Amino acid sequence: MIEPEFKDGLLPVIVQDYETLEVLMFAYMNREAFDLTCSTGIAHYFSRSRGKLWKKGETSGHYQHVKEMRIDCDRDCLLILVEQDTGACHTGYRSCFYRTIEGDVVGEKTFEPADVYKN
Amino acid sequence: MIEPEFKDGLLPVIVQDYETLEVLMFAYMNREAFDLTCSTGIAHYFSRSRGKLWKKGETSGHYQHVKEMRIDCDRDCLLILVEQDTGACHTGYRSCFYRTIEGDVVGEKTFEPADVYKN
Repeated sequence: MIEPEFKDGLLPVIVQDYETLEVLMFAYMNREAFDLTCSTGIAHYFSRSRGKLWKKGETSGHYQHVKEMRIDCDRDCLLILVEQDTGACHTGYRSCFYRTIEGDVVGEKTFEPADVYKN
Repeated sequence: MIEPEFKDGLLPVIVQDYETLEVLMFAYMNREAFDLTCSTGIAHYFSRSRGKLWKKGETSGHYQHVKEMRIDCDRDCLLILVEQDTGACHTGYRSCFYRTIEGDVVGEKTFEPADVYKN
């Protein structure tokens, strides 16, 4: 296996749908998240804002099933191809990149956040 | 236009082929690189290792012509869809993500670095 380089303990990760090739989201893994992703096949990340490990889908149930992992030429960025349950974005869109920079909505809404995130 | 958020002066950027949807590379823009990309339609980045602005293709001639820019839900990551001249990676592959984490080569080689990078 090619060993990724964690800069300041973190590895940037691009998440892409393995069938449609839509880019779904961008996040970071620390060593623990990377190891858990490899061992379980479910994407785990490190939340910089919350300062802790984050199993994607632990609240929403929208897990990411990892089909393939690729690493870039410098070994400091990861591309993972996943099967995404329902949607990746907390706003209800399948992809976090659902808007152009001009503000046009180009993504597909796949769930209602109010139905999923209940306190 | 939706204003991106530059954390510590930098914005992570995912670069995707606008036709094949192949993820080509990952880089960072500072404010100057972002503005130049918007005004010229040619991708510019900020090289963290060299500490300076970097017009992609300035040495190789392999420019990236920006077709669309998308921003994520948090406005702190950019996805740009480009027409890539020849190849994006300095190793000669079209994409920097030409290997799986297991080390299998899955990308296409599109040029010989020795022919392109001459001192």
